[in-house]
Amino acid sequence: MTDQVTEQMTPWRPTTLVRAPRLSSALGCEITLASETFQVTGSFKFRAAWHVASSVSQRALITASSGNFGQALAEACRLLDKTCTVVMPETSARVKIDAVREAGGVVNLIDVRAISRAARVAELAAADPSAYVASAYDDPLVIAGNATLGDELASLAVDVVVAPIGGGGLCSGILTGLRRSGSPIEVVAAEPLLGNDAARSLRAGHIVKNVDEPATIADGARTISLGNHNWEILSNGLAGIVEVPEERIVEALRLLFSRANLKAEPTGALSLAALLCVPARFAGRRVCCVVSGGNVDADVYARLLV
Amino acid sequence: MTDQVTEQMTPWRPTTLVRAPRLSSALGCEITLASETFQVTGSFKFRAAWHVASSVSQRALITASSGNFGQALAEACRLLDKTCTVVMPETSARVKIDAVREAGGVVNLIDVRAISRAARVAELAAADPSAYVASAYDDPLVIAGNATLGDELASLAVDVVVAPIGGGGLCSGILTGLRRSGSPIEVVAAEPLLGNDAARSLRAGHIVKNVDEPATIADGARTISLGNHNWEILSNGLAGIVEVPEERIVEALRLLFSRANLKAEPTGALSLAALLCVPARFAGRRVCCVVSGGNVDADVYARLLV
Repeated sequence: MTDQVTEQMTPWRPTTLVRAPRLSSALGCEITLASETFQVTGSFKFRAAWHVASSVSQRALITASSGNFGQALAEACRLLDKTCTVVMPETSARVKIDAVREAGGVVNLIDVRAISRAARVAELAAADPSAYVASAYDDPLVIAGNATLGDELASLAVDVVVAPIGGGGLCSGILTGLRRSGSPIEVVAAEPLLGNDAARSLRAGHIVKNVDEPATIADGARTISLGNHNWEILSNGLAGIVEVPEERIVEALRLLFSRANLKAEPTGALSLAALLCVPARFAGRRVCCVVSGGNVDADVYARLLV
Repeated sequence: MTDQVTEQMTPWRPTTLVRAPRLSSALGCEITLASETFQVTGSFKFRAAWHVASSVSQRALITASSGNFGQALAEACRLLDKTCTVVMPETSARVKIDAVREAGGVVNLIDVRAISRAARVAELAAADPSAYVASAYDDPLVIAGNATLGDELASLAVDVVVAPIGGGGLCSGILTGLRRSGSPIEVVAAEPLLGNDAARSLRAGHIVKNVDEPATIADGARTISLGNHNWEILSNGLAGIVEVPEERIVEALRLLFSRANLKAEPTGALSLAALLCVPARFAGRRVCCVVSGGNVDADVYARLLV
């Protein structure tokens, strides 16, 4: 029997594996979902947040996040009796802002057209030099935390793992965990076409940046560019990147609802959306789609659903 | 690591256990969700359907079901290379009708104001005397199949299990599994107030029937009465029944969405709704809420969400 409750040994939860035969028959490949929607704070970000907050000596942490990393870091800091300030765009999902506050975090809202997240974080750090500034992705501690998911996926009988990409923390973590576990499973990244800096970076052979934060519905992937630490791992490690149009994200979100009973946030639906974009790439293969998170406002979700 | 995929030994899947701290803090008790939404065919019914279809010698099966049992029986019959006919009310969720057909079942739609499910099943059985008529709940084979969930829950560190009740197949199965595993965990049933025949039966000391199928949004609980085999187990085994108004079902469905990232069908939300109805009954206790299924039309769900 699967018992995630009584055998819990780590602060984070093992990923929830869901075989999805009705998705598989619709998509023409054998799909297993690795759902991080039931992770602590509802997304994979808690793995990294816990690792960062528990590894650094500082008692105060500052971060910039469109929501899931902020919520995760706030919760990790609460558990560790540390303090946490999260810089968030005003356009972040309301549930994510509320959840940061519920976990005891201080939310600092910005208009990203007026000031960048990095600039506001720098202001806050200057005001409190004893604080640790945590990147949501560009930090070896983040990659090490997310690598715990790669460790778990290494034991799956699959040919390829597909995961969303924004700053690159998740994919670089999965690669790290798989490879240190001796697994040759391919990793393919799924990126919103509206913010396809990672795909352009891979083609250019160096990090390419978006001019502005891309206006994709996948709010977890509204990043300017890959992080340097992530790039080192991704540039040689990724098997490819699929660039996903917005309408495919919506289609995938609906399929997860109707054929797998899974509530995913738009960013979480990116991996399945990648399969919709290039079915021939995955036909007949055993594919693990990482559903990175499930935090989405009810009104947004209801509108996307029908 | 939790690996439901590679260690799969039974045709049904182990229940998905989700700790729900954000529900717990909102409800004032310690809540674990036992979600059957990721079960084969999206509800607990597959446990019973498989047990019935694999136990009887007949090659053709007939049943009446508002949907989940029909879908589950159709899938079990498909896996066993048997045939399956499902009598369903015209008002059943469209996704459930489609899913029966997708699994290769024959759907026989009825107007329940014109003919009862039992009468139509009798007509079909008369036309094919070699077929096995499968009850969705009133059958020792159904109870034995659902008892596999009780077996799983027996190892949880909880004080009470709350589960939806319609015909009584789920609660009697859970009780059977818990007790044969030596567990003293209480079982409380959650019933729509609109169709509170089980609660009235418990008070009367004998089975009391609804005049018509109750018009509750919990379509899995639109039953006329408890089954006789279920009553034998429930009448002495249940710790109580909570009668749930419709608006509490909706509230619980929304809470499962917003605070646990779980997509539940209305019937599946009954157990959490029971906690909303009588919070004092559960305050401070360790409660396992069985979320019995997740199959609900997107337009219905979107309307309930906001």
